[in-house]
Amino acid sequence: MIPNILAERYASEAMRQIWSPHGRVLRERELWIAVLKAQRDAGLAVPPEAIAAYERVKDQIDLDSIHRREKALRHDVKARIEEFCDLAGHQHIHKGMTSRDLTEMIEQLQVLSSLKLLRIQAAAALLAFGRRAAEYQDCPITARTHNVPAQLTTFGKRLAMFGEELLHGLERLDDLIGTYPLRGLKGAVGTQQDLLILFDGDTAKVDAIEKNVLTYLEAPCMLNAVGQVYPRSLDTEVVAALVQLASGPSSFAKTLRLMAGHGLAGEGFAKGQVGSSAMPHKMNTRSCERLNGLHTVLKGHLTMVAALAGDQWNEGDVACSVVRRVVLPDSCFAANGLLETLLTILNEMEVFSAVIARENEHQLPFLLTTTFLMEAVRSGTGRETAHAAIKEHALAITMESRQRSGASKPNELIERLATDKRLNLSQQTLQTILKDTVAHQGAAAVQVDHFIKSTEAWRQRCPDAVGYLPDPIL
Amino acid sequence: MIPNILAERYASEAMRQIWSPHGRVLRERELWIAVLKAQRDAGLAVPPEAIAAYERVKDQIDLDSIHRREKALRHDVKARIEEFCDLAGHQHIHKGMTSRDLTEMIEQLQVLSSLKLLRIQAAAALLAFGRRAAEYQDCPITARTHNVPAQLTTFGKRLAMFGEELLHGLERLDDLIGTYPLRGLKGAVGTQQDLLILFDGDTAKVDAIEKNVLTYLEAPCMLNAVGQVYPRSLDTEVVAALVQLASGPSSFAKTLRLMAGHGLAGEGFAKGQVGSSAMPHKMNTRSCERLNGLHTVLKGHLTMVAALAGDQWNEGDVACSVVRRVVLPDSCFAANGLLETLLTILNEMEVFSAVIARENEHQLPFLLTTTFLMEAVRSGTGRETAHAAIKEHALAITMESRQRSGASKPNELIERLATDKRLNLSQQTLQTILKDTVAHQGAAAVQVDHFIKSTEAWRQRCPDAVGYLPDPIL
Amino acid sequence: MIPNILAERYASEAMRQIWSPHGRVLRERELWIAVLKAQRDAGLAVPPEAIAAYERVKDQIDLDSIHRREKALRHDVKARIEEFCDLAGHQHIHKGMTSRDLTEMIEQLQVLSSLKLLRIQAAAALLAFGRRAAEYQDCPITARTHNVPAQLTTFGKRLAMFGEELLHGLERLDDLIGTYPLRGLKGAVGTQQDLLILFDGDTAKVDAIEKNVLTYLEAPCMLNAVGQVYPRSLDTEVVAALVQLASGPSSFAKTLRLMAGHGLAGEGFAKGQVGSSAMPHKMNTRSCERLNGLHTVLKGHLTMVAALAGDQWNEGDVACSVVRRVVLPDSCFAANGLLETLLTILNEMEVFSAVIARENEHQLPFLLTTTFLMEAVRSGTGRETAHAAIKEHALAITMESRQRSGASKPNELIERLATDKRLNLSQQTLQTILKDTVAHQGAAAVQVDHFIKSTEAWRQRCPDAVGYLPDPIL
Amino acid sequence: MIPNILAERYASEAMRQIWSPHGRVLRERELWIAVLKAQRDAGLAVPPEAIAAYERVKDQIDLDSIHRREKALRHDVKARIEEFCDLAGHQHIHKGMTSRDLTEMIEQLQVLSSLKLLRIQAAAALLAFGRRAAEYQDCPITARTHNVPAQLTTFGKRLAMFGEELLHGLERLDDLIGTYPLRGLKGAVGTQQDLLILFDGDTAKVDAIEKNVLTYLEAPCMLNAVGQVYPRSLDTEVVAALVQLASGPSSFAKTLRLMAGHGLAGEGFAKGQVGSSAMPHKMNTRSCERLNGLHTVLKGHLTMVAALAGDQWNEGDVACSVVRRVVLPDSCFAANGLLETLLTILNEMEVFSAVIARENEHQLPFLLTTTFLMEAVRSGTGRETAHAAIKEHALAITMESRQRSGASKPNELIERLATDKRLNLSQQTLQTILKDTVAHQGAAAVQVDHFIKSTEAWRQRCPDAVGYLPDPIL
Repeated sequence: MIPNILAERYASEAMRQIWSPHGRVLRERELWIAVLKAQRDAGLAVPPEAIAAYERVKDQIDLDSIHRREKALRHDVKARIEEFCDLAGHQHIHKGMTSRDLTEMIEQLQVLSSLKLLRIQAAAALLAFGRRAAEYQDCPITARTHNVPAQLTTFGKRLAMFGEELLHGLERLDDLIGTYPLRGLKGAVGTQQDLLILFDGDTAKVDAIEKNVLTYLEAPCMLNAVGQVYPRSLDTEVVAALVQLASGPSSFAKTLRLMAGHGLAGEGFAKGQVGSSAMPHKMNTRSCERLNGLHTVLKGHLTMVAALAGDQWNEGDVACSVVRRVVLPDSCFAANGLLETLLTILNEMEVFSAVIARENEHQLPFLLTTTFLMEAVRSGTGRETAHAAIKEHALAITMESRQRSGASKPNELIERLATDKRLNLSQQTLQTILKDTVAHQGAAAVQVDHFIKSTEAWRQRCPDAVGYLPDPIL
Repeated sequence: MIPNILAERYASEAMRQIWSPHGRVLRERELWIAVLKAQRDAGLAVPPEAIAAYERVKDQIDLDSIHRREKALRHDVKARIEEFCDLAGHQHIHKGMTSRDLTEMIEQLQVLSSLKLLRIQAAAALLAFGRRAAEYQDCPITARTHNVPAQLTTFGKRLAMFGEELLHGLERLDDLIGTYPLRGLKGAVGTQQDLLILFDGDTAKVDAIEKNVLTYLEAPCMLNAVGQVYPRSLDTEVVAALVQLASGPSSFAKTLRLMAGHGLAGEGFAKGQVGSSAMPHKMNTRSCERLNGLHTVLKGHLTMVAALAGDQWNEGDVACSVVRRVVLPDSCFAANGLLETLLTILNEMEVFSAVIARENEHQLPFLLTTTFLMEAVRSGTGRETAHAAIKEHALAITMESRQRSGASKPNELIERLATDKRLNLSQQTLQTILKDTVAHQGAAAVQVDHFIKSTEAWRQRCPDAVGYLPDPIL
Repeated sequence: MIPNILAERYASEAMRQIWSPHGRVLRERELWIAVLKAQRDAGLAVPPEAIAAYERVKDQIDLDSIHRREKALRHDVKARIEEFCDLAGHQHIHKGMTSRDLTEMIEQLQVLSSLKLLRIQAAAALLAFGRRAAEYQDCPITARTHNVPAQLTTFGKRLAMFGEELLHGLERLDDLIGTYPLRGLKGAVGTQQDLLILFDGDTAKVDAIEKNVLTYLEAPCMLNAVGQVYPRSLDTEVVAALVQLASGPSSFAKTLRLMAGHGLAGEGFAKGQVGSSAMPHKMNTRSCERLNGLHTVLKGHLTMVAALAGDQWNEGDVACSVVRRVVLPDSCFAANGLLETLLTILNEMEVFSAVIARENEHQLPFLLTTTFLMEAVRSGTGRETAHAAIKEHALAITMESRQRSGASKPNELIERLATDKRLNLSQQTLQTILKDTVAHQGAAAVQVDHFIKSTEAWRQRCPDAVGYLPDPIL
Repeated sequence: MIPNILAERYASEAMRQIWSPHGRVLRERELWIAVLKAQRDAGLAVPPEAIAAYERVKDQIDLDSIHRREKALRHDVKARIEEFCDLAGHQHIHKGMTSRDLTEMIEQLQVLSSLKLLRIQAAAALLAFGRRAAEYQDCPITARTHNVPAQLTTFGKRLAMFGEELLHGLERLDDLIGTYPLRGLKGAVGTQQDLLILFDGDTAKVDAIEKNVLTYLEAPCMLNAVGQVYPRSLDTEVVAALVQLASGPSSFAKTLRLMAGHGLAGEGFAKGQVGSSAMPHKMNTRSCERLNGLHTVLKGHLTMVAALAGDQWNEGDVACSVVRRVVLPDSCFAANGLLETLLTILNEMEVFSAVIARENEHQLPFLLTTTFLMEAVRSGTGRETAHAAIKEHALAITMESRQRSGASKPNELIERLATDKRLNLSQQTLQTILKDTVAHQGAAAVQVDHFIKSTEAWRQRCPDAVGYLPDPIL
């Protein structure tokens, strides 16, 4: 059999459970039981021992037996009804329901369970970002814009920056979980015709059943006026939330790949990873690359699923079926694998402070040109004159270094500026500025404090995240 | 000059205003004044007459003059600063700010204003759906799944179904507007270095300034730990919300195109539209097609903008610049044009009750096969036997009609079922079922009631929507 | 294990073979043998019995054994080398090769094999379009634009239209197969360093080896200057070609769904399909819906894979790895399943001539308004006057029919036009026009002839297509 | 008016011409004249002075006048017909044509002209790649995989690698231009009904007219069996070809951004660019970032346009209209702007050989670990032992450098390997290997030769490319 590569290679066991054939059958049975209880509460004659019997056998899942029944009956839902009823010795489930009442809801429950699992993983990653940001709160690093040195920041701040993007995505996910509406028991075209016949047209009873089922399923709310299917834009909302959730992590991974290229940090090669078999010296950021790849997969899923939104013909059809069979599980597997990978990286990431310090030392005079400029203006030089002079020296040093062979020399910008008459800046003034490293980091430390505080709130909001550990990755 | 086709051909004047060069300059000036006031409140020496002067001249926008300055200075932001300062006769704006403090915030304000405008349009469309659903609450119509007749529903319910999808999208939009975070005044790499120098490193003052600016701008919140740019996943969230918002409308438009193909409804051709010049008999649903097309455009924008998410290198760069120049205005124009089109369709839609009634009459016996089946079972026939018998007759009638030439005949299913010994269903029983049309519509009417109630809430939540009228469309 | 749903549910056995773990190992071994032979021909000392030994055991594939080796060695390629060598009792393969020389080429060979299989399927579908177009060459049908009746065409012409789009896609696929370049044996960064060391820096020998391997592999050409990887835009080209190939079929399926909604045609329900268990009267175009869904899946793959194009960092990395693991097999499975479905539909499609005839009869006077208009102009009426008059009558009839309850009446347009003084058209003239059905079909029959001729060429170009039969679909 | 930002800010004047309102009117008139001539040749009575008159006035384009007519007539095509006829003093154009015969063909001609222009630009870029590859053919550079140093290559080879990807894309473009089929004069639903009436049903004449028009238009071929519209998968093919064409350039730009981050190369800042006004030391690769951004825009267009493929309802409708109004011009503008940017970068790129040499010197011992490994094995050490030993030393040196503060030290790998008893490699052996720089570059130089030769062929194939210069970019 050809395996689902996202499930088998990247996803965690818990996520595989949700989408496994076994897990699906279990969820169906739980839904049937929930509906049965709700129907009983609404006055349908259901013997209590029947419910007990169904509950007793619900974990006895024999996929082969179901498969044999399906072949004989040529109908998948019927096969699963009969299997469950034969096991229980009763025939009470699925009354007043149509296939879509079952399949739509099950898929939604799988989605909702997946989102809840991803929420735990994302909250765990957020806490890890907080931990790492605290660790490097005061570690100055050369900030880059356009991929070239710009000003000073701290590595803690850089981590907080990516962590805060994750936080925003997590809030979106949390909001989605709290507002995700189930389709409900709406019948073949959405009018609840079958259920109403069962309850003699009593819409209040049907309403009560749906509310009861919601409570059993721990889902937040239900739709009211649907057709055969729930609106497919809901699937788009889900995958869009996953793409968003993965964005902070993906930018972080990309930046770590860039940092590894400068030897500033790595993803923890030392802990026994084999590396390249051909080239013994290499320490590749393979996990970061994988994380970026999984984000790309999710974006493709977004295109797929967005194509379904706004494409409902009348009360609905199944042109979306194969698309949702692919995209619902696969986007959950991809997001799950991405967060597992992220957690591993955050746990194992190594930061090479000596290399960072060397870069800072070399770049610092450049990174402070803004400050020198302001100081020159304060001391009476015209802004344009000062800008031109500083640019001239900075360029000259850079160009000389780029054309002169041999080892690189210390950065002479301070010396050159001090002797430039146009600028009116003494060596001492410049050195004083140069040494006040903390001042050059601006509000970085404060921002990290704020970020850590916002991560802390999630300890309470998601206790399961606190001890969450990723499965070992390949 | 090559015009922006989405803006010029589909968008409303109000949306064009937001994204026009003129509108952008005005927003910039308002931001500068807001920052200046906040800096004054935080203790910076700002003469009151300066603020008054800036406010007095902020509407004097001369794009040609700005353009001439830009050519001379070779710097766009500088050119706009000088123009504004010269008009006001003061030099106090943009202190402690970098270009990104201006440009990121302005683009976010344009987005936020656009979202607020779209909220009004969408709420207006929701009210229109409510109005139309009420109008057709009791109009029975043949529900279709897989594009073929399935059961009975009402046209009011069908409208409620699409309206409810819009409602869910509107709630998402509303939530987004309420949580959309501005980047804030964060400086070149996000550490607020320049502003802190201006306020002698007092982070509390800088914080207070940002809070003040937020209030002036009527925006909900600000980010804390950003880099050069705000996280681009925020742009993805915006466009994803627009795709979602447009989904209910798009499914409605697609269904109206299908209904027009059966002559059941139209988009109001009679009101003076020219139609096809070549074929005088044609009444095309061009506006519905346009609406679907605009949704497709939005989905392309989603791919574009999602490509930026998770692609931040270090503190950021401008590889996203051209993409956002295209996608931010264009997605707002597309969504705006789509909702204008929707409102026009909802206002002008014609429903052809005679054709609907003819279809119902012909299809009704088929639509009730489920009910006949249950009744046969109740009267003692085995389910499988009854199913096979009914299917046999239904197929026979259909096939006969498809192969026999000449005019179509009345549906003879009732007669055939009544005489089938296997079923044990009398002509009278069958006729009684057939006539109880209201029962066949299930909970449709109740669902419409629920839907209308949920639209009513939006009268209060968005009073501007009540009288909103779309611009005339091309 | 979670199965790959596209492979297991939709793809054919032949396509599953190509992408199965077993198939991959077999292809690897064939590549190793091909390289070994080429190295021998270039002068490397390779005992003839070694090659014979490898060839003898290449089909002895024990995935469990390989898996055990991999666990012990922690290296997948090494594991497969050792397994093959132990089976053969020789150690000559993989010399001068790096992992990428193997993996890139294998994936390309899987792609190329898949394309060749899809070419057969597509050619078979083209022949089926030709057969069906011939069958309905002279069957007049109401052409629709904007989904409403426009003019007359023939059903054969409609089939030719979709078939010709498939033909264009097939030509693109054929061209791609003929120009698809393999990466070649280029070493770790693309400089062929390892192979050159093996052959003492003799680039001519290395060249000869690559040419030899090409011939063995029946591939058209090789790249020259690559890095670690072949350019990923090649993957984009492949998936884009698949999306294009599926477009004619997808438009055909969508149109068949529309036609089924009018009862004009179906996808062959009568041949034993079960249909809806709940609603015995329904005949759903499920296969057409599936075909459209598979096209949507492919378009998502296109977004995924296009994200890799133009994203190569230096000589390459593996950020694309997980994406390609998903998209290469899955897009081939989706395209393969789509064509299997298409072939089934083309074979089983039913056309309901009586319903088509009834629609033609009712619509014909409308469909001829263009002709009436020209005739009125010819007889002296001004064009604008004639247009307004015809439009007035057409609208009146349509509107009356849409508002009047009761059965539909015969189309009275001819009568109304004949009595309108403005038009100067006699009843006889109008009837004469009405009856010349063949004239109303324009060049439809000729176009079908042309189309059939162009399909015939493919009998020779792809003999395997002639008898190709799809696997039975679920 | 809101301008089209892609056209106004990034595209060249020649591309703007093609898609301008003025250019469109001109093309329409040329098509009308071509059809008129072809109709005359087929026997229609057309006075020679009429054709002459139309040709004389075809450049007199007054958009305001056309706009005034359109307002009065409420029909755009009619307005343009009347304007042209009034100017010429004749009424012979557009006979037997419907609006779609005009609009579809014009849009296709705009596409085809754009493709031809892009072909020239791409060929010019290919020649520039060839020129630059020759310049740096022998410049050794540290090849990177996974963004970390791997082996040696040359910068010329790296350029050839990206150039060869462009070459493949250019071949695809060239093939597309040579096979791009026009829709032809097919009438309202594709049956050529109107044209056949004009020529009394003579399909041979109608055929001849189409062939004639093709020749006039310098287009390669025409479709046979279309509906109202040409198949939209053709638009997908076009945009997919543009995405592919831009991929080599985009990978090149991304790599140049990475190289700039290491100071190895830049995009020619020295030639007067202003840079960052705030930070005088910065040299940003803004053009490379722009190029990557434009590629992202194209990929969004691909999603947009792919959504149209396979979505044709019956003979077609205009749900695609707004999408194509956006995507056809905008994708051409984006591709055009991208290639203009590429040409500027290739012309102005600076390569900093001293920095490259310093990196090579430091990395070289690492880059040769594969060679050392092979040599150790040759001298009798077991492969696994040798691999472990080399890895141990390489890691130790790297880790020491990453943890030790102070300036970086020379790479001591050679010394450490020479003294490791396990390896049996003398200092002399190692130094000999180290010094043979040319050998370490493998086939790089040969590959560059091959590449240059393949670019040279394009001098003949596209002479206009030879002297092509990009417009100055913003």
